[in-house]
Amino acid sequence: MSSAELPVDEVRDPGALFLAEIREQPAALARLVERIADFEHVAATMRERRATTVRMVGHGSSDNAASYGVYAFGLLPGWTAFRDSISLSVYYGARPDLSRSTVLALSQSGRTPDVVQYVERARATGAYTVAVTNDPGSELANAAEAVLPLSAGPERAVAATKTYVNQVAALGLLAACAAGGGAVFAEELSAAGALMSELVPDLEARIMSVAAPFAFAGRMFVIGRGVEFATAREIALKLLETCRVAAEPLTATDLAHGPVAALDPLFPVWAIAAEDETLPTLVDAAGRARAAGATLIASGSAATRVGGAHFVLPTPGTRLSLLGPLLSVVPGQLFAWALARTKGLDPDEPRGLSKVTLAR
Amino acid sequence: MSSAELPVDEVRDPGALFLAEIREQPAALARLVERIADFEHVAATMRERRATTVRMVGHGSSDNAASYGVYAFGLLPGWTAFRDSISLSVYYGARPDLSRSTVLALSQSGRTPDVVQYVERARATGAYTVAVTNDPGSELANAAEAVLPLSAGPERAVAATKTYVNQVAALGLLAACAAGGGAVFAEELSAAGALMSELVPDLEARIMSVAAPFAFAGRMFVIGRGVEFATAREIALKLLETCRVAAEPLTATDLAHGPVAALDPLFPVWAIAAEDETLPTLVDAAGRARAAGATLIASGSAATRVGGAHFVLPTPGTRLSLLGPLLSVVPGQLFAWALARTKGLDPDEPRGLSKVTLAR
Repeated sequence: MSSAELPVDEVRDPGALFLAEIREQPAALARLVERIADFEHVAATMRERRATTVRMVGHGSSDNAASYGVYAFGLLPGWTAFRDSISLSVYYGARPDLSRSTVLALSQSGRTPDVVQYVERARATGAYTVAVTNDPGSELANAAEAVLPLSAGPERAVAATKTYVNQVAALGLLAACAAGGGAVFAEELSAAGALMSELVPDLEARIMSVAAPFAFAGRMFVIGRGVEFATAREIALKLLETCRVAAEPLTATDLAHGPVAALDPLFPVWAIAAEDETLPTLVDAAGRARAAGATLIASGSAATRVGGAHFVLPTPGTRLSLLGPLLSVVPGQLFAWALARTKGLDPDEPRGLSKVTLAR
Repeated sequence: MSSAELPVDEVRDPGALFLAEIREQPAALARLVERIADFEHVAATMRERRATTVRMVGHGSSDNAASYGVYAFGLLPGWTAFRDSISLSVYYGARPDLSRSTVLALSQSGRTPDVVQYVERARATGAYTVAVTNDPGSELANAAEAVLPLSAGPERAVAATKTYVNQVAALGLLAACAAGGGAVFAEELSAAGALMSELVPDLEARIMSVAAPFAFAGRMFVIGRGVEFATAREIALKLLETCRVAAEPLTATDLAHGPVAALDPLFPVWAIAAEDETLPTLVDAAGRARAAGATLIASGSAATRVGGAHFVLPTPGTRLSLLGPLLSVVPGQLFAWALARTKGLDPDEPRGLSKVTLAR
């Protein structure tokens, strides 16, 4: 049943949609993997046109997923990918030569106005433009030369969950196809989905007791490094939009370049620790936060390696460490659900937000 | 007298160093302009080598200045500039072909470890590497092929002010030289410096009364768009490090994609409004914040165009709108100084920070 068909007097448990979509993520991931042929086709076109500079655009969760794309393309085909400035072309009219660029335009609805405009301008200046969206019939899909369907299915909660996970998976899968390893990556995606199916109920059973002590927290830093910086951004956004916590994402290193001075025992820090080369940096930053008196939550595949954490939410390791972010975002999503419930907020419909953001 | 020579028992007014360096900014800017020949030389090398993909790296204020560089290079020579991932190469060992890239490595001290490592790796893979630093004898300067001296002079307050302004000016001047307009841009920089000389005492006279009502504010959003996003990031960082306010920078558009849900009357918003093509977007976002009950501070060259702002801190218009950020950061610097004083904090020496950050 789509949200348009909901009876007006439906009695809905606050957060029921948000939770249902978190639970649905493994199935959404499986639907994406089935579309591998689309990804192989787009990747082949990127190679043929030598359009190997990857410009990603999007807002909110879509922009957070783009932070992951930087690593997926940098590590698999070895291409340069970055989050491009939308305002440079849309507002200021800059027209760089984009003939060697692929644009990946990320929008759940395919209706974000300045993302559509960016794509129109980029296509006119020679870029290979690809819409990555849940709606292959959207304005964005029509504006772009190619479409990669996110296949997350209708998302009814305002705060994105399964769309974000599928955006991360889509960027990883496209990068893997570009590097000639699409099939293997797809298998690993399926394996990560299976791990997620076990992780969600385990976390659901204990997350309320972890969230409860944060009922009056007004602010938080969420730190990550490398591939997990995207996760830090996404968890911070969930906390902002569903729990009204002023949560700011920072790289582990940037924490020491100023923000650490703001910490005190009423300013908790969430650290996402991956079992990869960035771990010492993350552990060091978490130690600085603890030394400043901050309450520390540790999550991620190396959560137990973060010394002195007050709450530990480990996530399973994946064979490819690049797939860690698919799992490490889940504790943040469920924590946001639980904290919103604890605070009497409705994470399905945060005040002042609507599912499709048409703001310029 | 360098800080090393300060007598231990020196009686220093808290914030005296920070304020002195804000006041010194016009003089620091003048010193930078005198080095135009260095900028012309580096720009000529970039053109000769066709190293027109500009990768900027830095942490904290340096990374904020890099946000400005995206626009300076995008609008003047029409080149693609972006804030590159440090961890991709330093931690994960990615080695993309950088033969057509210029690296601009921004570090006040020239001693930031992962920035030095990034430069070493980039130079080995073909990039034209340029250190932009206050210390031409630093490790970073030695690692890079060329050095652009920031000429800000010794910065004694831990929180950067004149270094940030000179980093912004340096990126603008280099971009202008690359576009063949260095001399004109240098004149406009001097004109902006003259405007700043008048702005600082005017703002100093009234900033305490603006800051006082925020003594108990625990969090804030700072919004900007386009060239002023760098300013939003820098003002937020000053508030975090000197005032212990959880201040988060957002583009005007991203505010609507989630974070607006967190706003209430105890969550103020600072809006930086430029008299350029992004103004309607900024005004729209400020309206959303006001509708959510947020107290609104407006600054920038179009501050008076932000309807319903509770505090208005206009900055003079510049002939080149690209130079607006040199002036629009000043109200934020002085507000941070005044708020820190109001709260009994010492903005010269924020707790937990040191002038040179060696954190990885």
